[in-house]
Amino acid sequence: MKIRNPRTGVYDYEIAQLSSEELTLKLQNLRQAQDLWKTTTLPNRIEALNAWLAALQEEKDELIEALSIDTGAIRESTWEVEMVGNLIAQFRDNATRFFEINQGSYISDTLDVTHQFEPYPLVGVISAWRLPFFSPLIDAIPALLAGCAVVVKPSELTPRFVEVVTKTLAPIPLLASVFTFLAGDKHLGQQLSESVDLVCFKGSQENGKRISETVSQRFIPAFLQLQGKNAVIVTEQADIERASSAIVWGSVFNAGQTHHAIERIYVHRNAYPLFLSRLVGKANLLNLAFPTINSGEIAPIISEKQVAIIDEQLRDATSKGGTIIAGSQACELKQGGYYCQATVLTNVNHQMKIMKEPTFAPILAVMVFQTIEEAITLANDSLFGLEGAVFAGSDEEAMEIAQKMNCGAVSINDTALTVITQRGINNFSKQSGLGTGNFEENSVGRFLKQKTYLRNKNTEKSSWWFR
Amino acid sequence: MKIRNPRTGVYDYEIAQLSSEELTLKLQNLRQAQDLWKTTTLPNRIEALNAWLAALQEEKDELIEALSIDTGAIRESTWEVEMVGNLIAQFRDNATRFFEINQGSYISDTLDVTHQFEPYPLVGVISAWRLPFFSPLIDAIPALLAGCAVVVKPSELTPRFVEVVTKTLAPIPLLASVFTFLAGDKHLGQQLSESVDLVCFKGSQENGKRISETVSQRFIPAFLQLQGKNAVIVTEQADIERASSAIVWGSVFNAGQTHHAIERIYVHRNAYPLFLSRLVGKANLLNLAFPTINSGEIAPIISEKQVAIIDEQLRDATSKGGTIIAGSQACELKQGGYYCQATVLTNVNHQMKIMKEPTFAPILAVMVFQTIEEAITLANDSLFGLEGAVFAGSDEEAMEIAQKMNCGAVSINDTALTVITQRGINNFSKQSGLGTGNFEENSVGRFLKQKTYLRNKNTEKSSWWFR
Repeated sequence: MKIRNPRTGVYDYEIAQLSSEELTLKLQNLRQAQDLWKTTTLPNRIEALNAWLAALQEEKDELIEALSIDTGAIRESTWEVEMVGNLIAQFRDNATRFFEINQGSYISDTLDVTHQFEPYPLVGVISAWRLPFFSPLIDAIPALLAGCAVVVKPSELTPRFVEVVTKTLAPIPLLASVFTFLAGDKHLGQQLSESVDLVCFKGSQENGKRISETVSQRFIPAFLQLQGKNAVIVTEQADIERASSAIVWGSVFNAGQTHHAIERIYVHRNAYPLFLSRLVGKANLLNLAFPTINSGEIAPIISEKQVAIIDEQLRDATSKGGTIIAGSQACELKQGGYYCQATVLTNVNHQMKIMKEPTFAPILAVMVFQTIEEAITLANDSLFGLEGAVFAGSDEEAMEIAQKMNCGAVSINDTALTVITQRGINNFSKQSGLGTGNFEENSVGRFLKQKTYLRNKNTEKSSWWFR
Repeated sequence: MKIRNPRTGVYDYEIAQLSSEELTLKLQNLRQAQDLWKTTTLPNRIEALNAWLAALQEEKDELIEALSIDTGAIRESTWEVEMVGNLIAQFRDNATRFFEINQGSYISDTLDVTHQFEPYPLVGVISAWRLPFFSPLIDAIPALLAGCAVVVKPSELTPRFVEVVTKTLAPIPLLASVFTFLAGDKHLGQQLSESVDLVCFKGSQENGKRISETVSQRFIPAFLQLQGKNAVIVTEQADIERASSAIVWGSVFNAGQTHHAIERIYVHRNAYPLFLSRLVGKANLLNLAFPTINSGEIAPIISEKQVAIIDEQLRDATSKGGTIIAGSQACELKQGGYYCQATVLTNVNHQMKIMKEPTFAPILAVMVFQTIEEAITLANDSLFGLEGAVFAGSDEEAMEIAQKMNCGAVSINDTALTVITQRGINNFSKQSGLGTGNFEENSVGRFLKQKTYLRNKNTEKSSWWFR
């Protein structure tokens, strides 16, 4: 399978498909190695991950290089690699606390109950092309700390980094035996969902439904983080300078290609004129990362399929009265890569696809509201419920509005704090998926099965017919 | 739809099917009432459940009467009603502790994170004909305490008690507005799985797969407790008197018609002769609850469909060398009801259906083993993994074996402690379903969504391009 380079449009990389036999053997080996891994102590697992972190440092340049070809973006690729240390430290603390709290024993007068936590042997992390290295680690690291073996399948659009990551794991045989990255397409994702013991999936609703249906017949847990259409509400009292800065960042970082991106902006009519002028001013200061990868802030659009969706959404919006007052009329083809400027769109409404369907582009679609109730209704008028943001006169005022937003997480007077702080979201709403807990202690707990042992201390209470 | 009486075989009861419009209206009303219920305090919810408990006491005789026609069993029906107080008390404590532990706030130097627990608005409990009143309450009561509205659909084989339960709810309008029992068939179960926000299902693998597939496309949580083929291991050092008493009870109570029943018995060859003689002796002391409902310990087989399965399993076993040394050669038809004696079967092996497929009958199938390793292999040689039991020379020795059994819960030197102590199982293995936590605090936590609010205390750390 040939893979397109998002900056040149050239199909300059190839991934070999594993045969069924090769895959079966790889998964068997992972399961076998997990027998040992699950008996290692948490400190030993942490040590192995820290050793990997050191190995990542060694290969840092090469890893960033591979990722930046996969994604066409250098800053984001650097960020992905630099954040791994934070992730490991955070999940290390979560895991330590989880096992401290859950000593797993409950004793009453009559009953002696012991819990034993058993890691799901093999976890499959099927991931997306947005932050392709960092994103699967949010599942993979806590799963490893829990004692699972983990196989990661990144999107077929961004497979180049797999070779380098594999090289970084080699010096830590214990970790390498239970942690592997496999390049492959949807078919491999499907095979994994038919074989592993727990699935973490990030991607589209369509693929999510397919994976979800497969695992539903196997009675195994699945955590599905799907697309969103994240809204921000800006009230009359909000700090407009702060709001416009945070929203430009929240919409445009990684060219809008994350689940955390703001895609709908609702502004009070009295704040609208000033907000719009600051938004346009700031958007216009941002540049495409073209002609070189170091040129500007806005990376190319990774997925060619997504280019067509973005163009159709812009066309649909303008044909229905939307006005593009800054940025691109459509994705711009430059030397084989597709780019979209930080684009400000006004006069939008909920009849337009751009306010209803996931866009994954640096597009700032702004709509005016008159009352907070109206703003909340608009924000909640969506099939999705991943995350959101509110800017108001105070944190308290923002919290009050945030509580009425139907989504998994809300940033208060800021945007996308989930990604900045490398925190996950515990639950999603509506079509945005199904998940319980990649937050704090849950991050590890969700990879552990709880087996229960019961002993009746008072045998008189047993309901036998005979003694 | 006409419903068969398990003691007479007469179709003497009819359930009216709700129209789609009636159902939609009922669910709408539940959702609307939940708006208020979720804002009531936990003590108020507990008070409402205690008021219901008092109302149940008032109608106790009538409720037991209805249940005993549904199930053909008087002792078990009495037990089901008498245990409700324990259930409420236990889940009350769990809920109180859950909300104490989860104050929902996490604060670091840079980040201020608040969690808010939101009950899933409407929970659907789709239940089975085994312990038809008690069994759905293991889900319904914690869901109500979490602040959800709950609709229970019992099996279409056991709908008579619904009328009486509905009557007991009437004096507590607040509770009645968010808690309803609806009689109906599989079609109603399917409709519920298409409408509610969380599903608890108990029943067969086949129906579980159907429900699971439906909810997989809606990205809502489902807890599925399916069938098992529970094994017990009896070692050479076990107290044979104790083991045989507990196993007769664990296999025969409720005529083997529960998910907790022991269906496979593995005994060390040196213990076998004494164990078998004690088992046969005790089995032969038990009598059918015939001619009257008060006559003996062994109630009729509730499901006519199951009668055919039991007979086929007995036929298959004896045709392959199995020997029935006590009890029934096949289900016995008596005045329209089907009965099966406490039946001891020897010379069985894993080629026989009776050692592989769920039976739900008071059948004690005994197999000899030579080494503990062999016993564990046999116990784990099953598509199912609900629960199990071990009898050994000491609790410690039993624990060691229990840890190697692949299932959700193990009773130590006892059987079915999960049902005796009204504790659920947190996780199941293999084809026995998917569930996390109707145990202790989890019992309530699994009905709550966690919504996260994030505030960056250190705005310098925000990754905006502009200040």
